Amino acid sequence: MATLVLLRHGESVWNAEGLFTGWVDVDLSTKGEGEATKGGDLLLDADITPDVVHTSLLKRAIRTANIALDVADLLWIPVRRSWRLNERHYGALQGKNKAQTREEFGEKQFMVWRRSYDTPPPPIKDDDPLSQVSDLRYAGLPSELIPRTECLADVVDRLLPYWYDSIVPDLAAGRTVLVAAHGNSLRAMVKHLDDVSDEEIVGLNIPTGIPLVYELDDDFAPLKRGGEYLDPAAAKAAIEAVKNQGAAAPAADTGKAAKPAKTPRGRKKK
Amino acid sequence: MATLVLLRHGESVWNAEGLFTGWVDVDLSTKGEGEATKGGDLLLDADITPDVVHTSLLKRAIRTANIALDVADLLWIPVRRSWRLNERHYGALQGKNKAQTREEFGEKQFMVWRRSYDTPPPPIKDDDPLSQVSDLRYAGLPSELIPRTECLADVVDRLLPYWYDSIVPDLAAGRTVLVAAHGNSLRAMVKHLDDVSDEEIVGLNIPTGIPLVYELDDDFAPLKRGGEYLDPAAAKAAIEAVKNQGAAAPAADTGKAAKPAKTPRGRKKK
Repeated sequence: MATLVLLRHGESVWNAEGLFTGWVDVDLSTKGEGEATKGGDLLLDADITPDVVHTSLLKRAIRTANIALDVADLLWIPVRRSWRLNERHYGALQGKNKAQTREEFGEKQFMVWRRSYDTPPPPIKDDDPLSQVSDLRYAGLPSELIPRTECLADVVDRLLPYWYDSIVPDLAAGRTVLVAAHGNSLRAMVKHLDDVSDEEIVGLNIPTGIPLVYELDDDFAPLKRGGEYLDPAAAKAAIEAVKNQGAAAPAADTGKAAKPAKTPRGRKKK
Repeated sequence: MATLVLLRHGESVWNAEGLFTGWVDVDLSTKGEGEATKGGDLLLDADITPDVVHTSLLKRAIRTANIALDVADLLWIPVRRSWRLNERHYGALQGKNKAQTREEFGEKQFMVWRRSYDTPPPPIKDDDPLSQVSDLRYAGLPSELIPRTECLADVVDRLLPYWYDSIVPDLAAGRTVLVAAHGNSLRAMVKHLDDVSDEEIVGLNIPTGIPLVYELDDDFAPLKRGGEYLDPAAAKAAIEAVKNQGAAAPAADTGKAAKPAKTPRGRKKK
């Protein structure tokens, strides 16, 4: 039996501003840092001690892990990182204002891009400043492996090799594994773990900053479908809030500039 | 040719309070966080881009690396950690006030413990609350490998296997390697790199927060003995200050409690 803990990063600056983020390397907001701290407190309270942490290559997940592990006095555990844990690539929508996109393309198209399992948004152009083809952190990836857009099905496909080759071996060695990642890479993982159908996954949301704990059997399947959140009441409330979020443009979007003053573009290859 | 960057952690809370620290997992002070930020700025200004970071298992080195890499927009690079990069174990002196120790045992004995190459302080007892024998992070080490005290010669002995087996392979692969560690583990590394004599190493100090850059030849020997600090003037001033520090008790020690309110003891094995 092994323990897997999934932790979705706290609110990012672009979450707060209502922008599509995807692979753009946006930092945590102050609220997001607080959520990461709460995540660490919950691990401590539950007496769950990760032996190793896996993160994406995006700083909002990395900093969430660092903050939570610092709170839990576990900054020293081994760290693994992979682009395969990154958020879904949001294609040409990256950096766009969600409310404006909804207005421009209509509610139906907007929801297809946000929620369809197998329809990706339009691809981002390689010369778009928010493309990742020249980002130093992916310099080791052949260009054909760097997404220009992704639907959730694409995320499942690129996530599973990492699950099988890097996370499962840690679980097989008896380690308690913490995965600090993103809404959609964690939905992809949960889809695999709980064998969620393509239809059912559309309505499944994972709240930020609340560790989701799976006890796994010897075949790395959950003993309890859906796992257990360390703060079930807060998780339930957050899931409800996300469901309602799609229904109307949040007030915070109104009158905001489409992009923040400083666009995080990552360091470029030389 | 490969590039090696050594970064000594910024001031810790116990540095500021004038206590011997060693393997006790003391956090950075606010000043120390600022030094780490400066270290990241210096890397950026010098256009040095580490491909991988190696740290000790102690949070003052880990947080220094995290802060500096965040500033340099490189939080995503691979991370390796090892107890072999830890600070020198200060034995029974861990947690003791430096000024009080000097008074109690006299200047000569004090300087032997602080600076002798091959005379360790008295060993710490295994049931001392500041011993590391029950610390969760060393649970994978057989008890005989966990130091009860160390002189610098001991640090060289336990560091070199990590240098040869983990750092050199990264350098051989052409990676720019950042090592975020401690005054004495870095002195041990410099002793090896520059072939410093047992006598000469006694007077060699490495300032905090200023990256020390070595360009290495194909045999992993420095092209320039001593390497180059990214801020040579600040490094020189800091080295002078450390030399003078031994001469008199710093004012900050006077009237201070021997231990801070909260003693960091690390998480215990179950």
